[in-house]
Amino acid sequence: MDLPRFEDVREAAVRIRPLVHRTPVLTCATLDRRVGARLFFKCENFQKVGAFKFRGACNAVFSLDAAAAARGVATHSSGNHAQALALAARLRGIPAHIVMPENAPGVKREAVAGYGGRIRFCAPTLSAREAALEAMVAETGANFVHPYNDPRVIAGQGTAALELLEEAGDLDALVVPVGGGGLLSGTLLAARGLAPRARVWGVEPAGADDARRSLREGRIVPSVEPRTIADGLLTSLGEVTFAIISRDVEDIATASEEGIAAAMRLIWERMKIVIEPSAAVPLAALLEGTLNLGGLRVGVVLSGGNVDLARLPWSA
Amino acid sequence: MDLPRFEDVREAAVRIRPLVHRTPVLTCATLDRRVGARLFFKCENFQKVGAFKFRGACNAVFSLDAAAAARGVATHSSGNHAQALALAARLRGIPAHIVMPENAPGVKREAVAGYGGRIRFCAPTLSAREAALEAMVAETGANFVHPYNDPRVIAGQGTAALELLEEAGDLDALVVPVGGGGLLSGTLLAARGLAPRARVWGVEPAGADDARRSLREGRIVPSVEPRTIADGLLTSLGEVTFAIISRDVEDIATASEEGIAAAMRLIWERMKIVIEPSAAVPLAALLEGTLNLGGLRVGVVLSGGNVDLARLPWSA
Repeated sequence: MDLPRFEDVREAAVRIRPLVHRTPVLTCATLDRRVGARLFFKCENFQKVGAFKFRGACNAVFSLDAAAAARGVATHSSGNHAQALALAARLRGIPAHIVMPENAPGVKREAVAGYGGRIRFCAPTLSAREAALEAMVAETGANFVHPYNDPRVIAGQGTAALELLEEAGDLDALVVPVGGGGLLSGTLLAARGLAPRARVWGVEPAGADDARRSLREGRIVPSVEPRTIADGLLTSLGEVTFAIISRDVEDIATASEEGIAAAMRLIWERMKIVIEPSAAVPLAALLEGTLNLGGLRVGVVLSGGNVDLARLPWSA
Repeated sequence: MDLPRFEDVREAAVRIRPLVHRTPVLTCATLDRRVGARLFFKCENFQKVGAFKFRGACNAVFSLDAAAAARGVATHSSGNHAQALALAARLRGIPAHIVMPENAPGVKREAVAGYGGRIRFCAPTLSAREAALEAMVAETGANFVHPYNDPRVIAGQGTAALELLEEAGDLDALVVPVGGGGLLSGTLLAARGLAPRARVWGVEPAGADDARRSLREGRIVPSVEPRTIADGLLTSLGEVTFAIISRDVEDIATASEEGIAAAMRLIWERMKIVIEPSAAVPLAALLEGTLNLGGLRVGVVLSGGNVDLARLPWSA
């Protein structure tokens, strides 16, 4: 298997620079004190479509040659990746076909449609979703862009850590949430090239700890019935992300559900920014001490800010 | 009455520069589209203590000569000004005496105490508050710093607009919320000196429209039983703020309660930042059309981000 490399992240950065926001890196004295480390937060909640996913989708869409691009892109997703791919395709002026379960929340459908995505509904099962995608690709010739198990997507996600390392200078550690592993894989590639001394951790909810178990067992352990409010981190690793992560990662830590909600609230209250539960997972591990980086300079990627404001974890 | 001038704002900016955050100016394509104008948001929700109030308090505290400073500062407030004064005093190493009604919420007491403020409780009436303050000042010799009706405070608040005008370049209009009028007065002074062509509006809740009525009647109309979720905008104008506002302001517009809640939510959802209801009042007027600045370049001061996350206007 040909794994993406640091050079691919570098090329992605050049390719997508005119299209993405160069998001700010924020610091917070209160959080530094609580954790006992110096934290640098890369604010991908301010990214277009509200999540880092736009970087990978953009890199995939703008990597296509003209003939392939003309046939459009396709994916199965109801989350941030679907919106990201729809917007990236619109910017290139090509169609984006999105397979979505018929029970997907209205707000997600509207968001994808709002970015010009063409939605095809399917039954809410994995096999129906794959069949619908296959049929769509056969029919249109569209290029399938997987949400994370795709070297172009991984290289694009790595540009967030690239910018963070450029801006925050010498970091001892990088900590990012892990679901399918696209962000973590890209971060590992960026660090390998730009800051080989920095150690990189992934963090996932204790109720969705398949990446940690995969690392322990040396094979992809599927994510079965994950239970977490961090709804961006439900998926299993893919072959490409597993290969990179198991080669390069320091370790995968976990965070409790209470810890995730508390960390999310702390970031809202103290930093005055809106992040989604998944984005709070690294800070939760640092506060709970399941990951102890005391005294170090630590980069944290705040992965996204798409959250239902009427259903917050502390308003229940 | 000697009113503060543009030069006072300029001096305040130099004085407080090492102490305050130079907050970012953010833009949002979606909000521009909705309003039909180009909006530049000065993010004072990211200011220390979470509100622009820190600017005025800092300028007042650091304007004192050494002998006066040694006696400390005092105010009656249970809101952002009390926290701001407590932190400014701590930075100068002098005591801050805060008179607070005994029924003030625990979270506000803790915030003031957390910044080192010395709290004296009083009965929850205006006369008890004034008596307690007078007694405290007589006893300690502390310098009273009014939340808004003070030239040093007004000059300090004006530095937010000064930075906004420096950063956003040529603006046609500035729009800020108005409660006691400190922020609006300071903004008027800054604009007068730095952008005399720019027109300045204040906006207040329709349920607390005393500033608008004061302007109409040519005298300070007290704020009696204001009804609004914008709890930073309940107070009446003071003599100093009324004099500046009635001389220089373009007009005072109003916003409905539903409009304020909707504008607040829109900023959270689209800009991914946490603002308090008071900070949403200008955008509410622009969206409702009570203030029509179509086609213009408009600066908006987002006044603060201190909000009870467990009691949001849309979670009731």
